[in-house]
Amino acid sequence: MSRWEPGAYSRLQQAALELYVERGFEQTTVAEIAQRAGLTERTFFRHFADKREVLFDGAGLLKELLVNTVATAPDPVAPLDAVAAALDAAAEMLGGRAEWSRERQDVINANPALQERELIKMASLATAIAETLRQRGVAEPAASLTAEAGIAVFRVAFERWISDPQGQDLRHLVRDSLDELRAITTGG
Amino acid sequence: MSRWEPGAYSRLQQAALELYVERGFEQTTVAEIAQRAGLTERTFFRHFADKREVLFDGAGLLKELLVNTVATAPDPVAPLDAVAAALDAAAEMLGGRAEWSRERQDVINANPALQERELIKMASLATAIAETLRQRGVAEPAASLTAEAGIAVFRVAFERWISDPQGQDLRHLVRDSLDELRAITTGG
Repeated sequence: MSRWEPGAYSRLQQAALELYVERGFEQTTVAEIAQRAGLTERTFFRHFADKREVLFDGAGLLKELLVNTVATAPDPVAPLDAVAAALDAAAEMLGGRAEWSRERQDVINANPALQERELIKMASLATAIAETLRQRGVAEPAASLTAEAGIAVFRVAFERWISDPQGQDLRHLVRDSLDELRAITTGG
Repeated sequence: MSRWEPGAYSRLQQAALELYVERGFEQTTVAEIAQRAGLTERTFFRHFADKREVLFDGAGLLKELLVNTVATAPDPVAPLDAVAAALDAAAEMLGGRAEWSRERQDVINANPALQERELIKMASLATAIAETLRQRGVAEPAASLTAEAGIAVFRVAFERWISDPQGQDLRHLVRDSLDELRAITTGG
């Protein structure tokens, strides 16, 4: 087996998710994932720290996308508009991976430890967005509140998207969810 | 030692927190907590499932308070107003325990596993509030969004309160944080 396997990353990711869905996350071993992908365990560990990271590896990329979009929104920008642009970019990124996202969510929902990891991921996204807003001169508590509210908007839209495979696309749902937040806070 | 110790619950809670601050959460044993409180381990376990639950035991009461306040807000009520009333009640409850809250937060901030538990607690409060709003006829996604935004408001206010012991009281900060959310979503 050669040291460089084209597409190894996504083959491993796909094989892992299949096995997590079929057998459960706990019951699946790295050896089985590598075998299903037609690769070695060594190749697995070149790409992922452990079998959990297969599910969370995208978090770094997502954070980078959110932070960069908030950081580069043109001046002068209202904080919520910058966050809205970031959520739109994130929705575009995830929207193209609907089946992966849905299966991944099923695996996470079935496992409390993975749910905790997902909560930590979401909290760290909010922290990173708030930090970026502060760097752009947004004061507290506006920076933290905008970031937290933005993540809440995204979570709610994401859950609707996941639970209705035939429904609207994620970008539409995120925009809808943001409009709803505005309606709640002005009407309330 | 008699089977009924007056004030055992709060003596154990106080002794535990002192030890967590002095020695760290991980380094403290239930035996030491009981000894510091002048009680037996058996008495400890009549009140708490384990040493972690000393820090999270109030979560059930807090959830009950939030849910009851949302459930009993007079009709017709805007969802965010019902949640605002619940946050105000929660702030009143916690506001009287400033020193406990601050020391507890220091212990949690020093321990990743406790931070995870705290995130789960906050997520479960949001879920309970959303469920109560739905029972009152609030549709989705408004119910989830109002609940999540409300918890975000509370977290931001709580962090400001914790970080500035000489500052404003928690109820004031919660109201301020809520006004700020309204300003962000209308100005944005």
